[in-house]
Amino acid sequence: MTEIRGWAAHGAGKPLEFTCIDVGALGPEEVEIKVEYCGLCHSDLSTKNNDWGMSQYPVILGHEAVGTVTAVGEHTKGVKVGQRVGVGWNASSCMHCHQCMTGQHNLCAEALPTIIGHQGGFSDKIRAHWAWAIPLPDSLDISAAGPLLCGGVTVFEPLAVMNVRPTDRVGVVGIGGLGHMALKFARAWGCEVTAFTSTEAKADEARGFGAHHVVATRDADALKRAVGSLDFILVTVNVPLDWAALTACLRPNGNLHVVGAILEPMSISAIDLIFGQKRVSGSPNGSPPAMAAMLDFAARHQILPQVEHFPMSRVNDALEHLEAGKARYRVVLDPDFA
Amino acid sequence: MTEIRGWAAHGAGKPLEFTCIDVGALGPEEVEIKVEYCGLCHSDLSTKNNDWGMSQYPVILGHEAVGTVTAVGEHTKGVKVGQRVGVGWNASSCMHCHQCMTGQHNLCAEALPTIIGHQGGFSDKIRAHWAWAIPLPDSLDISAAGPLLCGGVTVFEPLAVMNVRPTDRVGVVGIGGLGHMALKFARAWGCEVTAFTSTEAKADEARGFGAHHVVATRDADALKRAVGSLDFILVTVNVPLDWAALTACLRPNGNLHVVGAILEPMSISAIDLIFGQKRVSGSPNGSPPAMAAMLDFAARHQILPQVEHFPMSRVNDALEHLEAGKARYRVVLDPDFA
Repeated sequence: MTEIRGWAAHGAGKPLEFTCIDVGALGPEEVEIKVEYCGLCHSDLSTKNNDWGMSQYPVILGHEAVGTVTAVGEHTKGVKVGQRVGVGWNASSCMHCHQCMTGQHNLCAEALPTIIGHQGGFSDKIRAHWAWAIPLPDSLDISAAGPLLCGGVTVFEPLAVMNVRPTDRVGVVGIGGLGHMALKFARAWGCEVTAFTSTEAKADEARGFGAHHVVATRDADALKRAVGSLDFILVTVNVPLDWAALTACLRPNGNLHVVGAILEPMSISAIDLIFGQKRVSGSPNGSPPAMAAMLDFAARHQILPQVEHFPMSRVNDALEHLEAGKARYRVVLDPDFA
Repeated sequence: MTEIRGWAAHGAGKPLEFTCIDVGALGPEEVEIKVEYCGLCHSDLSTKNNDWGMSQYPVILGHEAVGTVTAVGEHTKGVKVGQRVGVGWNASSCMHCHQCMTGQHNLCAEALPTIIGHQGGFSDKIRAHWAWAIPLPDSLDISAAGPLLCGGVTVFEPLAVMNVRPTDRVGVVGIGGLGHMALKFARAWGCEVTAFTSTEAKADEARGFGAHHVVATRDADALKRAVGSLDFILVTVNVPLDWAALTACLRPNGNLHVVGAILEPMSISAIDLIFGQKRVSGSPNGSPPAMAAMLDFAARHQILPQVEHFPMSRVNDALEHLEAGKARYRVVLDPDFA
């Protein structure tokens, strides 16, 4: 048996409490990682509050963990004790279905989210299937790398799977924890990048993250000028938008892609899709090889989120800070266990 | 000046009347074609009734015309007098925009629909830009080939542009004028094909057109059994459907594609798109090179629509027949001018 000490939710809407949870013996294909940093993602908040109706309590939150492998099960592959790795949204998958066998483990029907039925990274140690413990390039600053493991790959992977090309014009809607990383990735991808934000104060920062242009989404004229101008629009917010206005901003063959868990159905015009040969699509985080490719790309271009650090013991303050929309732009928690 | 004689709509909802229309001198890049057959498409009905608010009267309908080139303008290329050609939804495009220059002329903002601001094929002769007069393979039966030029390419092109692979499982929703051709194309494309129909009486015919499986869309249990089973679903109807039930039938990475002009917005769940990395898309007819590829493929596999012939003078009866949902499955009009 192994006891994990960490900050756990014990029910919807309650503050996290410091908790010890027995997670039993290390599985033969599992690795155990000493957590050095763990990012705080909006999905931690959604899971804490049971917004998606699938939370299981008690649960130690945190799914952007980076640290050092301290133990490996007897049937692990490719990961060694002492290696620096990261764990993101998923902690394991079945490894034998079509999705796993084709490098799309994140689409596995049995993929196990790190914080649903599993204990996460606001803790002294975290476990994951060896395939989901992703080696970190040495040249990435580990104190800021955590958010790449979930938020980063969530906005990077659409560029890869939707075949965005460096010659494309890319829009990023929502300049927050996800969006600011999306701007950096799209810029490094070679694209012409437009930030869409409802917060005018973020315009200069958006340019700093890589945006060539900024469109204020509350400015109807600015939106009109953007009509027919973009090949790919990445929606990083999780609130309903004016979908007709956004699809109108696409060029022929354009693609509107969502990664934020918008609960209300999107109202999409079939005729808009048909006449412009347009697409609306979505994708969830990324598979282990996709995460490895993302980390390699991030290291090459020195892409990291802009982070604020909180000691892990102040996780409830950090959650409030995030919920209030004050995070600039991503929060990382530093373990401070006694 | 040239007078075209044909069956024209003179206002929304009125029966077509035999009409002579002066279309002036042949343009330098235009060809003139003696109409031998012309398919009747649901879009003729929509244009007659001004369902899309963009009809221009008087207009000779018909945009699935096949015949022989009788005259060519002085700057035409690639098409000769005496050649058999077909004209589909578009009669011209600008030829110099990004879309035209990349072989996607059907996405040209200035593409001129054959029956909007131009005179169509329920006539003795029809004109088109040389690029839009598509040579017909000799081995295709010209008396049934007309509907390939609009309906055919409309259901063929999604297989090509959305990268449907022969190993994919394809669903076709709606077994009518478009859908029955879609079954034939998808079968010849090498796919496992499932027909979705609300008309049980069409099940055997759907199998005859190439469906391996038939799902009765009014049978909730049958729909449930189809969950997660298809890579690509082509929606050929133009009425609202249960979009959540259809996207649920997609496998991970699946694509729901619409070609019918559904006027009501589609209600699409972002979360469904995200978790399954799914897409919703649309496309309009096809470009000249796409039409040529489709005709070549149709000739190789001897794919033709199942047609009913009406003499052109009975066009109003044919329109009623189509509007009543009685066409099995596509109507072709045979010119019978005095």
